[in-house]
Amino acid sequence: MSVITAVETFDIRFPTSQELDGSDAMNPDPDYSAAYLIISTDAGDELEGHGFVFTIGRGNEVEAAAIDALRPHIMGQNVEDLLADMGGTWNLLVHDSQLRWLGPEKGVMHMAIGAVVNALWDLKAKRAGLPLWELLASLSPEEIVALVDFRYLSDALTPEEALEILRRAEPGRAERHARLLAEGYAGYTTTPGWLGYSDRKLARLAKEAVADGFTQIKLKVGASLEDDIRRVRVAREAVGADIKIAVDANQRWDVQEAIDWMAHLAPYDIAWIEEPTSPDDILGHAAIARGVAPIPVATGEHVQNRVMFKQLLQADAIGVLQLDAARVAGVNENIAILLLAAKFGIRVCPHAGGVGLCEAVQHISMFDFIAVSGEKDDRMIEFVDHLHEHFVTPVDVRGGCYWPPSAPGAGAEMHRQTLSVFSFPDGATWSSDAADGQQPAERELALKEAAADA
Amino acid sequence: MSVITAVETFDIRFPTSQELDGSDAMNPDPDYSAAYLIISTDAGDELEGHGFVFTIGRGNEVEAAAIDALRPHIMGQNVEDLLADMGGTWNLLVHDSQLRWLGPEKGVMHMAIGAVVNALWDLKAKRAGLPLWELLASLSPEEIVALVDFRYLSDALTPEEALEILRRAEPGRAERHARLLAEGYAGYTTTPGWLGYSDRKLARLAKEAVADGFTQIKLKVGASLEDDIRRVRVAREAVGADIKIAVDANQRWDVQEAIDWMAHLAPYDIAWIEEPTSPDDILGHAAIARGVAPIPVATGEHVQNRVMFKQLLQADAIGVLQLDAARVAGVNENIAILLLAAKFGIRVCPHAGGVGLCEAVQHISMFDFIAVSGEKDDRMIEFVDHLHEHFVTPVDVRGGCYWPPSAPGAGAEMHRQTLSVFSFPDGATWSSDAADGQQPAERELALKEAAADA
Repeated sequence: MSVITAVETFDIRFPTSQELDGSDAMNPDPDYSAAYLIISTDAGDELEGHGFVFTIGRGNEVEAAAIDALRPHIMGQNVEDLLADMGGTWNLLVHDSQLRWLGPEKGVMHMAIGAVVNALWDLKAKRAGLPLWELLASLSPEEIVALVDFRYLSDALTPEEALEILRRAEPGRAERHARLLAEGYAGYTTTPGWLGYSDRKLARLAKEAVADGFTQIKLKVGASLEDDIRRVRVAREAVGADIKIAVDANQRWDVQEAIDWMAHLAPYDIAWIEEPTSPDDILGHAAIARGVAPIPVATGEHVQNRVMFKQLLQADAIGVLQLDAARVAGVNENIAILLLAAKFGIRVCPHAGGVGLCEAVQHISMFDFIAVSGEKDDRMIEFVDHLHEHFVTPVDVRGGCYWPPSAPGAGAEMHRQTLSVFSFPDGATWSSDAADGQQPAERELALKEAAADA
Repeated sequence: MSVITAVETFDIRFPTSQELDGSDAMNPDPDYSAAYLIISTDAGDELEGHGFVFTIGRGNEVEAAAIDALRPHIMGQNVEDLLADMGGTWNLLVHDSQLRWLGPEKGVMHMAIGAVVNALWDLKAKRAGLPLWELLASLSPEEIVALVDFRYLSDALTPEEALEILRRAEPGRAERHARLLAEGYAGYTTTPGWLGYSDRKLARLAKEAVADGFTQIKLKVGASLEDDIRRVRVAREAVGADIKIAVDANQRWDVQEAIDWMAHLAPYDIAWIEEPTSPDDILGHAAIARGVAPIPVATGEHVQNRVMFKQLLQADAIGVLQLDAARVAGVNENIAILLLAAKFGIRVCPHAGGVGLCEAVQHISMFDFIAVSGEKDDRMIEFVDHLHEHFVTPVDVRGGCYWPPSAPGAGAEMHRQTLSVFSFPDGATWSSDAADGQQPAERELALKEAAADA
């Protein structure tokens, strides 16, 4: 038996706002960040559990404080007990009778719980010697159902129905496992489409994306209709008719505005409209879905929990479900969301990008293909080519596909040097010495790229 | 001109879990708490702005950290500018491009913004020499509309419609102001109904409530159907047929469970069923409302923002709207919610209790009566007789009514001694010396009361 001996937290920030990477209609200047934790044990096996909440800068310290608030729940606990009953462990964290007032099940506290849950899954997968997707895909339907909290879901999905979905997928698991290794899992890229980029840079990056094998790109929209029409046209001309172009408004519009705006972009053959309005507005999304049909509505990266996803599905509000690895309460809740999507027959195309979201969420999609929906032909994982170098096992994306990771764990582990250099506010990147003296590596890279586009 | 020179934060906790005050089906052991702030200026007038987030214990330090994260937005700012454009100030705080990732507009960060907004309103009202309700009721319809962010609301309420509602109420303001001073504003009490109380204590407190002039009481339900049926019967027998009895499940049920459970309580003439399920489940509340009719569904204390209230109203999901002073982003957002309720013709009966919620929310209801809905005959503010002694201007509740406060400010100011004694973890109530030596005053009071019930 072993116990948890340390839960370290880190406030890690990358100065991405200097380059307008990640700029969109609602997030003009994000500094991609992670409230990060490492769980250590006395097992003597040198295995640690790593997890994080992705944020875009200010407030990352609040997330770190929220992770700290969870420390008493796991410090000193028996590791084998926690990992053997991850459903029970999830309940312990999510249903703390006092902490739940801070949500319930939403925002800062819920995301912090997700980071802790995911760090425990990382540790569990490392102990099993398996990448998380393979560990999850090795569980029986009964074991998977036991990971899910069905509270507030039973009007849409019962445990019995979930079991039926999982049992239906069971016979094909081995065949799909082999297919996944042979074919990879499709990605699409948002790299060309940030609002801060020039038309020239957009066209260059869009062509590069096609050359790299991607079959879909995504553009940020919503700040200026005139600019959006021009940019979508530039992108369409750059990629030709066979490549899909999705657009993403990052919650910029009200309901009627979304419908009116999209009428102007529809002629350019839009694959989906993402986050047209508030992520809280289920009825609004449903109205927009009716108003922009046949263009599907997509959302999820800011959808706070499984209860909101349930309703988006019940209300026929979305055609594409974009779960996120670090918004809800971790792997367990994402399994609940996969099961809901399978029940309603809606495709899952996860949100990724940011810091480590690609590394983390690929495991969810790969598990879904093998053991839940059994589908991947119409599905894609978002890909943004930023900051992967900070991870011990960065994603392997080639030919427009995510290739299944083989390293044990959940993929979220950052290099120790990154945890030091990008620590806020005292790491070398942020301390005044660094600012006075040398440019951070990120900055240098961007300056070179800007020169190439000039 | 003056500037903000300090934003102090406090982690204040009361050991209420020792007495089971505040116990319900989801919150068995709350320690009523406040993440509290004081805004100071260099105006030389000794006026401060006080505000708080109510929590129930653990995690209060996370709320305090979230308030700290907002400090840079107001420290050193021109006070007159901030207070002259409270709509703009609200936008500045809510739409911070990086902090919004932590919500957006929900949970820890949104509540912290509410505390800061309310502290600024407290300062503004003190400068005006008026209680907040009178200050708000002195604003023109145009000034009130300028306080509200209509983003994501326009499919249900436009600025023009809001203006029309406010203009319609304008002619009667003086008459209703006089009525309010003469009649007070009705309250109802939850004091008898906590789950942890014995039947004997329930009956005694229910009778006392009627003797005190209350016309409605509320009981917590949801832990045991058998107990609930017995407790509702005990309460009905204690108060007679003319007093209203509402019940509150604190989010305990799934949709069908709520409908089935309420069928057993319906014979006892239930005034409303409060929080039957997840506060996020708009469609679930709508289904429950259809299933338990004609008993109205009530919710709001955990409803995260105006977008959720909008949908609860659009979906005919609630018959009673229970806004809360410390859940959404302060006075401004509560005005948006009052306007939505007025548009849909739904009565507002605010949630209160906890720490300081009664003191704060009465201003919202009184303003609503004078300047928004113009109604109060079917409306009540929740009242719980706990912890008022810690406030400089505690509520004046007599004869079952809230009597309008006359002291300048928003009512949230705690005694300096309370901020010291109940400070967590170093105040006298929480430090180990206190625990070893003497009982806190709260504890002594409870022991006396327990003796009276034995």
